[in-house]
Amino acid sequence: MRAVVLEEGGIRFRPDHADPCPAPGETLVRVLAAGICETDLQLIRGYMGFRGVLGHEFVGIAEEGPYRGRRVVGEINCSCGQCETCRQGLASHCPTRSVLGILNHDGAFADLICVPQRNLHPVPDEVPTLEAVFTEPLAAAFQIPAQVPVGPGENVVVLGDGRLGNLCAQVLARHGCEVTVVGKHLRKLALLERLGLSTLPLEALSRDRRADIVVDCTGSPTGLKTALQIVTPRGKIILKTTVAGSQTIELAPVVIDEVTIIGSRCGPFDVALAALRDRQIDVSSLVDGIYPLEEAQAAFERARNEPVLKLILQVDASFP
Amino acid sequence: MRAVVLEEGGIRFRPDHADPCPAPGETLVRVLAAGICETDLQLIRGYMGFRGVLGHEFVGIAEEGPYRGRRVVGEINCSCGQCETCRQGLASHCPTRSVLGILNHDGAFADLICVPQRNLHPVPDEVPTLEAVFTEPLAAAFQIPAQVPVGPGENVVVLGDGRLGNLCAQVLARHGCEVTVVGKHLRKLALLERLGLSTLPLEALSRDRRADIVVDCTGSPTGLKTALQIVTPRGKIILKTTVAGSQTIELAPVVIDEVTIIGSRCGPFDVALAALRDRQIDVSSLVDGIYPLEEAQAAFERARNEPVLKLILQVDASFP
Repeated sequence: MRAVVLEEGGIRFRPDHADPCPAPGETLVRVLAAGICETDLQLIRGYMGFRGVLGHEFVGIAEEGPYRGRRVVGEINCSCGQCETCRQGLASHCPTRSVLGILNHDGAFADLICVPQRNLHPVPDEVPTLEAVFTEPLAAAFQIPAQVPVGPGENVVVLGDGRLGNLCAQVLARHGCEVTVVGKHLRKLALLERLGLSTLPLEALSRDRRADIVVDCTGSPTGLKTALQIVTPRGKIILKTTVAGSQTIELAPVVIDEVTIIGSRCGPFDVALAALRDRQIDVSSLVDGIYPLEEAQAAFERARNEPVLKLILQVDASFP
Repeated sequence: MRAVVLEEGGIRFRPDHADPCPAPGETLVRVLAAGICETDLQLIRGYMGFRGVLGHEFVGIAEEGPYRGRRVVGEINCSCGQCETCRQGLASHCPTRSVLGILNHDGAFADLICVPQRNLHPVPDEVPTLEAVFTEPLAAAFQIPAQVPVGPGENVVVLGDGRLGNLCAQVLARHGCEVTVVGKHLRKLALLERLGLSTLPLEALSRDRRADIVVDCTGSPTGLKTALQIVTPRGKIILKTTVAGSQTIELAPVVIDEVTIIGSRCGPFDVALAALRDRQIDVSSLVDGIYPLEEAQAAFERARNEPVLKLILQVDASFP
């Protein structure tokens, strides 16, 4: 099969990569389209030491099992289902998990991917394939209301106008929060304004400690520092993006202002799919480019060097 | 009056310091005894840039007002009572607050201290004066169950075998948690064992990510790092001690393991006084020395150089 593989020297398009072979409990999925994520760029820079087929935001057709012939998306954490963590309902934190396209499991930038059957969700007919590609990052955004009670009247600042910041802002606005997105890119801020969200260029942000909730989607070591400057006493900071390596920070304000910092990762696919089906969240405006799988290298080059939102690899162009 | 004053060159005992004059709403309190706290040592090293009479853990006799002639303890945050933060019930976070012996308000290492009347709590007759000195740090320990639901079966690790670690451990054990205190001082760990708590020398701590809650009472930049190594996915880290200046830390595990970090500061005096009255918490075993006010310098010297628990300045020796 065709595959985009992360190897010692970087990523490579392989026209004749070996087809994957489903392990017990896994289903073979024929990939239709897959999105390029910030994590993919970090993996290429060496994060997690991953080697193999990249890609974890995808839509495909199940080749077997109960969803055979249907479009599916897949949760990325492949857990053992047996250990204490899994039995406590925390499968996404299974200590021996593999993660599609991220950790010890080949990903979706390929014609075929093996996915644990229990990770699959059928895509509602109403959701176009290119929109369903957003299920994984949108679920990550919906993890915020799953972890933290949010609602009308709450003053929320989202730091970062990129893909994840955009989705988190839309989700929190749908929950009634008063959301302001702070970013550096006029084009991305303008898009958010068109979606009905308030925005602010980073340089105009006043450090007045009025945000009940700050969501850090910057992927930058300065994100938490800025968040601590604007969050209200007893407020909450949600960390959505990981920062590789160490960062230097003053943590005394966390204690003095009794701030709560909440790490937030993968979220509920069913909620994300329902929101896409009901057209509650706009994702199509985030698509900045669609590339055939063979041109993955060019797509990665662009994702690295230009402030794009979402680039999508179309694996099977015959499918709408 | 006599007073221990933090000045440009360090602390000084002043036999003839000017008596304080109560501002509107303040009550004059004749100090009986006051405890030396880690924050006092940090203030002497320059933290907060404080200048004035030190001391914020105290028991005294109210000279006026509804508690006149009675023993009282006092909450340390002097808030405006008018601003939005105060009106929301977050008076201890009032942005224009002063703090007894810490920020823009003289403290309790003196014959007299002025305290806002609304900050005062009468001490139950059953509580000896030297035990009532612990009200403020014990209230800080009781802030943990006020912020975080804790209960039976919860696996709690307290990092730090000092004063605050000891009190936090006792409080959480009374709430039914399975508490282990991790520390560096055999004598302090032995005391905790005598109080019925499990302990572990730091070098014996295994990084097995099994703690539901980790309470960092180390006052050390390595505390949070250790906490992140032992907390379970979706677990909670309570930061009780401030660390002055910057620290370098990897925060990716906070996101990946969806850990919650909760800053925790001052707590409920009424709960602490009731616990002392009902003898639920042992504080007398923490007293490592009692010094007359004149010998404050020697007491500070010892607190700085020896791994003592609590040293108390007895301001009025005539009182039991």
